[in-house]
Amino acid sequence: MHTRIESDSIGPLSIPSNAYYGVQTLRAKHNFSISGEKLHLSLIKNLAVIKKAAAITNFQEQNISADIAEAICKASDEIISGKFQEEFIVDAIQGGAGTSANMNINEVLAHRASEILGGTKDTYDLVHPNDHVNCSQSTNDVFPTAGKLTVLELMPHLINNLSYLENLLAQKADEFSDVIKMGRTQLQDAVPTTLGRSFKAYQSAVCRGIHHLLTVTDEMHTLNIGGTAIGNGLNTSPGYSATIVQNLANELKLPLKQANDLYDATQNADSFVQVSGAVKTVAVILSKMSNDLRLMSSGPKTGFSEINLPDKQNGSSIMPGKVNPVIPEVVSQVAFQIIGNDVTITMAAESGQLELNPFEPIIFRNLFSSIELLTNAALTLADNCIAGITANREHCLEQVERSAGIATALCPFIGYKRASEVAKESLKTEISIRTILLEKDWLSKEKIDEIIDLKKLAEGITPSINHLHSILT
Amino acid sequence: MHTRIESDSIGPLSIPSNAYYGVQTLRAKHNFSISGEKLHLSLIKNLAVIKKAAAITNFQEQNISADIAEAICKASDEIISGKFQEEFIVDAIQGGAGTSANMNINEVLAHRASEILGGTKDTYDLVHPNDHVNCSQSTNDVFPTAGKLTVLELMPHLINNLSYLENLLAQKADEFSDVIKMGRTQLQDAVPTTLGRSFKAYQSAVCRGIHHLLTVTDEMHTLNIGGTAIGNGLNTSPGYSATIVQNLANELKLPLKQANDLYDATQNADSFVQVSGAVKTVAVILSKMSNDLRLMSSGPKTGFSEINLPDKQNGSSIMPGKVNPVIPEVVSQVAFQIIGNDVTITMAAESGQLELNPFEPIIFRNLFSSIELLTNAALTLADNCIAGITANREHCLEQVERSAGIATALCPFIGYKRASEVAKESLKTEISIRTILLEKDWLSKEKIDEIIDLKKLAEGITPSINHLHSILT
Amino acid sequence: MHTRIESDSIGPLSIPSNAYYGVQTLRAKHNFSISGEKLHLSLIKNLAVIKKAAAITNFQEQNISADIAEAICKASDEIISGKFQEEFIVDAIQGGAGTSANMNINEVLAHRASEILGGTKDTYDLVHPNDHVNCSQSTNDVFPTAGKLTVLELMPHLINNLSYLENLLAQKADEFSDVIKMGRTQLQDAVPTTLGRSFKAYQSAVCRGIHHLLTVTDEMHTLNIGGTAIGNGLNTSPGYSATIVQNLANELKLPLKQANDLYDATQNADSFVQVSGAVKTVAVILSKMSNDLRLMSSGPKTGFSEINLPDKQNGSSIMPGKVNPVIPEVVSQVAFQIIGNDVTITMAAESGQLELNPFEPIIFRNLFSSIELLTNAALTLADNCIAGITANREHCLEQVERSAGIATALCPFIGYKRASEVAKESLKTEISIRTILLEKDWLSKEKIDEIIDLKKLAEGITPSINHLHSILT
Amino acid sequence: MHTRIESDSIGPLSIPSNAYYGVQTLRAKHNFSISGEKLHLSLIKNLAVIKKAAAITNFQEQNISADIAEAICKASDEIISGKFQEEFIVDAIQGGAGTSANMNINEVLAHRASEILGGTKDTYDLVHPNDHVNCSQSTNDVFPTAGKLTVLELMPHLINNLSYLENLLAQKADEFSDVIKMGRTQLQDAVPTTLGRSFKAYQSAVCRGIHHLLTVTDEMHTLNIGGTAIGNGLNTSPGYSATIVQNLANELKLPLKQANDLYDATQNADSFVQVSGAVKTVAVILSKMSNDLRLMSSGPKTGFSEINLPDKQNGSSIMPGKVNPVIPEVVSQVAFQIIGNDVTITMAAESGQLELNPFEPIIFRNLFSSIELLTNAALTLADNCIAGITANREHCLEQVERSAGIATALCPFIGYKRASEVAKESLKTEISIRTILLEKDWLSKEKIDEIIDLKKLAEGITPSINHLHSILT
Repeated sequence: MHTRIESDSIGPLSIPSNAYYGVQTLRAKHNFSISGEKLHLSLIKNLAVIKKAAAITNFQEQNISADIAEAICKASDEIISGKFQEEFIVDAIQGGAGTSANMNINEVLAHRASEILGGTKDTYDLVHPNDHVNCSQSTNDVFPTAGKLTVLELMPHLINNLSYLENLLAQKADEFSDVIKMGRTQLQDAVPTTLGRSFKAYQSAVCRGIHHLLTVTDEMHTLNIGGTAIGNGLNTSPGYSATIVQNLANELKLPLKQANDLYDATQNADSFVQVSGAVKTVAVILSKMSNDLRLMSSGPKTGFSEINLPDKQNGSSIMPGKVNPVIPEVVSQVAFQIIGNDVTITMAAESGQLELNPFEPIIFRNLFSSIELLTNAALTLADNCIAGITANREHCLEQVERSAGIATALCPFIGYKRASEVAKESLKTEISIRTILLEKDWLSKEKIDEIIDLKKLAEGITPSINHLHSILT
Repeated sequence: MHTRIESDSIGPLSIPSNAYYGVQTLRAKHNFSISGEKLHLSLIKNLAVIKKAAAITNFQEQNISADIAEAICKASDEIISGKFQEEFIVDAIQGGAGTSANMNINEVLAHRASEILGGTKDTYDLVHPNDHVNCSQSTNDVFPTAGKLTVLELMPHLINNLSYLENLLAQKADEFSDVIKMGRTQLQDAVPTTLGRSFKAYQSAVCRGIHHLLTVTDEMHTLNIGGTAIGNGLNTSPGYSATIVQNLANELKLPLKQANDLYDATQNADSFVQVSGAVKTVAVILSKMSNDLRLMSSGPKTGFSEINLPDKQNGSSIMPGKVNPVIPEVVSQVAFQIIGNDVTITMAAESGQLELNPFEPIIFRNLFSSIELLTNAALTLADNCIAGITANREHCLEQVERSAGIATALCPFIGYKRASEVAKESLKTEISIRTILLEKDWLSKEKIDEIIDLKKLAEGITPSINHLHSILT
Repeated sequence: MHTRIESDSIGPLSIPSNAYYGVQTLRAKHNFSISGEKLHLSLIKNLAVIKKAAAITNFQEQNISADIAEAICKASDEIISGKFQEEFIVDAIQGGAGTSANMNINEVLAHRASEILGGTKDTYDLVHPNDHVNCSQSTNDVFPTAGKLTVLELMPHLINNLSYLENLLAQKADEFSDVIKMGRTQLQDAVPTTLGRSFKAYQSAVCRGIHHLLTVTDEMHTLNIGGTAIGNGLNTSPGYSATIVQNLANELKLPLKQANDLYDATQNADSFVQVSGAVKTVAVILSKMSNDLRLMSSGPKTGFSEINLPDKQNGSSIMPGKVNPVIPEVVSQVAFQIIGNDVTITMAAESGQLELNPFEPIIFRNLFSSIELLTNAALTLADNCIAGITANREHCLEQVERSAGIATALCPFIGYKRASEVAKESLKTEISIRTILLEKDWLSKEKIDEIIDLKKLAEGITPSINHLHSILT
Repeated sequence: MHTRIESDSIGPLSIPSNAYYGVQTLRAKHNFSISGEKLHLSLIKNLAVIKKAAAITNFQEQNISADIAEAICKASDEIISGKFQEEFIVDAIQGGAGTSANMNINEVLAHRASEILGGTKDTYDLVHPNDHVNCSQSTNDVFPTAGKLTVLELMPHLINNLSYLENLLAQKADEFSDVIKMGRTQLQDAVPTTLGRSFKAYQSAVCRGIHHLLTVTDEMHTLNIGGTAIGNGLNTSPGYSATIVQNLANELKLPLKQANDLYDATQNADSFVQVSGAVKTVAVILSKMSNDLRLMSSGPKTGFSEINLPDKQNGSSIMPGKVNPVIPEVVSQVAFQIIGNDVTITMAAESGQLELNPFEPIIFRNLFSSIELLTNAALTLADNCIAGITANREHCLEQVERSAGIATALCPFIGYKRASEVAKESLKTEISIRTILLEKDWLSKEKIDEIIDLKKLAEGITPSINHLHSILT
């Protein structure tokens, strides 16, 4: 392999001749052989977007020349369009608050911009990674800003997939609106409901989850770019700080704004904890729904067997004909991962010290991963599970009919104690509640029929009650 | 001890004669000898508020007579005013989705209302715990509603204390606005700042934390009361469901509303996860601030020694004269507890099944505890720490002066590489940056003085830079 | 209230005249109004045990006089026997690495020992809390040691209750050994098993859990007492350090030993993380078992209904006759709490700095609570649930018979693909596997009967297979 | 792309002609487009090892022919040697308890073994993935067994790196044994110690961590292979179960054994929780040490500045000459990740239901990742940080000399109260403790010199004390 020599304050290092990255990047790679994971592609893209906006602003402020600014912009656009991904070699888990990530893009852009200006990769004479590409910036404002922009880029995909899921759930709620089934609390027969109501409840919860996400994402528009090292904007010209966010906003067509307190915005990572918390809440919603899907589809012969999940793959390597709830299972696993990731993010944010939180790389790795895992889980849940669910209407109805769950509806008419006796007698003798009631002679046959109207019961519509007079004494 | 016999469907049980609780309560106590902790007093109060509002609504709906309603209201008011606390004997950690807590208050109110109507504790003939006190209700709508009302009662105390803390931080930011000190990133000397900026950043973060809390608390106003067992409102008269929330709102003077989807609101506990998440985020903010306070006050001789925490107690049983940062330490411990509690709450919410989440008792125990611990921690942090902090002005300034952190400000004028050499030389030789610069003859004395103006540097005010021309080549 | 004045380096403070605690204790109470929880009674007891052993050692080393040593021992014995509990007023969550707890007992013992020697509570002239009671000690060796002794005291109760549970599970495994039921994987019908095997598996897991606990508890015998402030044993006479652990061991009849590296033992709290980890693992075992109990007892009409949990209390305030799995539910809640506590303990241990971990109070609060919650949960699970479980033998058998789960047993004889077709046909047509097989004419009636012997199937006993020849091609 | 058609019970699917995987694998890939991560290479290898051992056993048991067995063994050896890695396309996060992973290898081996026997990838006529490759096996015993074997493969690397780190720490402890420095508790000046003692304490803790790992790893040797679907060994010939573990042990040269209770071993995942718990404990140890390294190296001018971490990379993109503690920072980030992973693993294990834990894929992903991250972190900590640490001897000594921390050593001679006054006076006046003492005339000059011997103090060696007589009264 052909190499060139680059030097930094630590000393010289051999770099592959054709590499756009430089000495500091390679050093970082050696120091952080940790996870083998690269930086998230969207993070790289957003770092390039920032570098471009900074170059424009620096040109406007006369901090760098038109030529250099133009070359940096061109090189940044190449990265934004997806080029040079293999040049980003630093580990996603890295010490140093993102300095290695920032220097990686600084070096790639400096070399590439030099090339554009007719130079070579052998010197930084034309474009310097620190003095030009990183001009008016610090890792400490660039990296958190790139993290927020990445959240802003990833989150709409999650919200789209959740909306898509919500729509499918609404359709299923409609489709199953007349499927009478037993409602269960604590896994015990409770009172009748409809399968439609169950799916409607899932839809409502997902809708609320989307609302949670929108709320927390809003704060991601507040950036600390312009604050440089600790928030005081040292080494920026007066106009830079006021302009950089506007240039970024123009570039991304997003309503970005600069934080009122740049010191705070540089040293505190609680906004990411808040985003992670909302993603976690949505994961809880989807996992609870997945628990239910697994319960309702349990069987086919020795379980609840109220619904059938679509048959997406052979369930077992040994048990023929077995269909397993693999999609809900993977959704729950994703939820477990996100809940663990939230602990990681929380600890990293709590460990910030003084003017900086040096643990943002692990925050970003986990936050981006949580968002994307949930994005993918929501889609497979929608397409590979919800969309194909069918109901076992007859079985659902039969179950309600042989249960004692309808005894609850008797309380307003015969009191809790008597209703309790009827329920226990029915369960013991397997004689239906209706038959027992008819024998008891407490209520007229008409009243009994009125009360035990499953369709109405399932919707919670009770016949007119007058507790004052109807409870037997 | 004198006893009376009460029976339920399980059988008879001896109850202390003077007890207002009944057989189901005592059974629950025997089943759940778990934590020894009682129900939160605010939860008991809010259960009573719900019972009162339900009695009023049931009377309006003609479900119970005026006499009974009035007696239940009177008895509820007694509990609301703090009476009968010793009658609530069930463990805070209980199985059964809060049924034991609900029956505890149903039994106490039934016995007490009976007394008010001239009866005794020997029968439920006059007022029955299920048929009258619990009329039109289920544990499954009463208990989550009581939980939300309790959050609404506890949260303002937390927000008040945080606002109080925020004000003190603002005062300190003002008081310390001219204390020039070294800013540190990754615990390494970075660039100068002021102590006032640090406290301002804490204030900004606390302010944002309050905003987080207000947002998530808003959702607590949406109640599932009226949904009874699974959300379909079974066993309520048509007017009940529409009126109960209004009656509750009147009673509490709170803008309460009923959930659009009562099934969802009954079975999903994600709103509590969201509240816990925001409390956790604020805990992270306070703990990060506490880390900083411990660092800045470290010493007195071999640490940073920038500030002095007030001397609140002897620090050591063996080391005389030692003053320890005990208040920041307790704040961090509270944060660790809250972060752990959040995991507990999340798992409990995730484990909900079908029409109900039976794990709300553990959710409530942890959520109420998190809110209260943080409320208390914020207050002791404000009063016993922040209020009494003093600055070591001279020491702060001396530290800045002998550091090499000001080298950063040279970059726009002499470039990153040369600035780096100057910094290293200064650190090695202990000769000041200024002296080295004067020797180098790169910049005029006037320019050097202009750049190394610590007061301006600390605020990030840089002299006019023209990168295009000023960087030496 | 009558008061006396006590002073420390901060200044004077009014103390109730009859209080045995002193000025530093009261200051701590004011500083740490956090949780309202007192120190664990066993922690107080073990602090007293340490103080007694230290007094004996100090007398042997001629550091304190016989009179004072004797008085401290007498006073300590009173605390050990349960007296003066109300004198321990400091909050369980406290800053300062336990200094407040240590000073609380130092002050109580100093005042009480003074009384024993004929003095009053007005001075420490006879016995001084620091110079005599705390002689040769530091909070930093006393408090961690007391924590370990408390774990050693609490753990046997947990292990006893788990052993008791294990025995009951073994009995049930025996009782249910011939109850054939459907085995389910991923909640889908798998292959037949017996209910006895299920309970045997629970027993095996609990047995393994006990083993985990014994292993991690072993490390709790290694103490840092004698290391004083940071592990170097400053202010101890040469004989003290060598003798104190032996005196403690004598007092407690436990095989205690001193850590080889007292610095390490003073600053690292990982041993408590390891204990908490094992308690968490056992919580996972019990919660998984509880999940199963809730599933197997689901119904009674629309669930699995394989077993009946004993009817411990009315399940519902609205639904008559409902029996809920309240005991398994409380066990799972305890598990969620313990898992959250483990996060708290881990974070506190991770946050240790340099020569000390100042966060041990929150570690102890959570660790002691985890152990005790699990101790109580194991007992109620054993007595109020496992002991009274009954099996629905006929229903279990019927379920197996109408399932297609036995198709698996056909694979070795007709191959996976054909077995799969048979299973699907049976599920679709509701014709039994046996009937379909007889029609197919692939296997002789004798072979079919041999294969589909449920009793043998349930135990996994397969008829002689010769894959080479038996699989149809 | 050329394709062939493969069918399963769901229907036909186009597969790339040259792919060794089959229809079930591809379906799984479509269903689980979740993380984009592949199965761990060691997991794939160990699946192949199991398949080979099973083929040998099946041949011995006459379940498959010699030809087929031999072909499967050959194909397995190819995978074991690292071939066909690109054929394993299923996502690491997958529903279905590992069925997709198991079928992936079953299909690859079936196709490859067919080729070896002269067949093509177009049919499974020669070697069938279920009937031959998976003969006598179920995902439910294969996958957990592969997981345990993977832990057994990965763990020695972690232990090796920790041992390497331990050795380096021991060397540093030796090198720094005479560097007197201030010991700090709660970040406040406490009593003198040596830097050597600090590194010795780290070594002791790492040594204990290794012991934790060895203990928990031991349990990984107990396998459930042979239990097939639920532990009853259905579809295995009598000799198979007894022989398979021995064949595996021979293949891997490991002391493997079969679980006594195969039902338990199939359905419970607590052993993985226990392993994760120990890995987490070690992560806590390394992160606490990293916290200390960052504190001790803080500065260089405005921090503790006791040690210098080796300069591994430019610290800042804006601040010239800044050296940041990037290696300790990455170690703490790894710890945060591992602590979060432990929560994920715990939740997944807790969620097991009945005869199986279907969430093992997420358990494995997190457990393997935790082990490897810590393995890499330990190595970079050792090589890139610990090995190059140097001490600032003079600065350390100066700090001790100007501190008041030596006041503690006075307590046995002048009492806690007087020592406290001296300490406070010294801190206030900046007059040295020694000078103040000489003025006070409480102790002879000789005694003072004897007491304030820093070298002895640092090792905790106190001059002969006689409390009875020496404390002034």
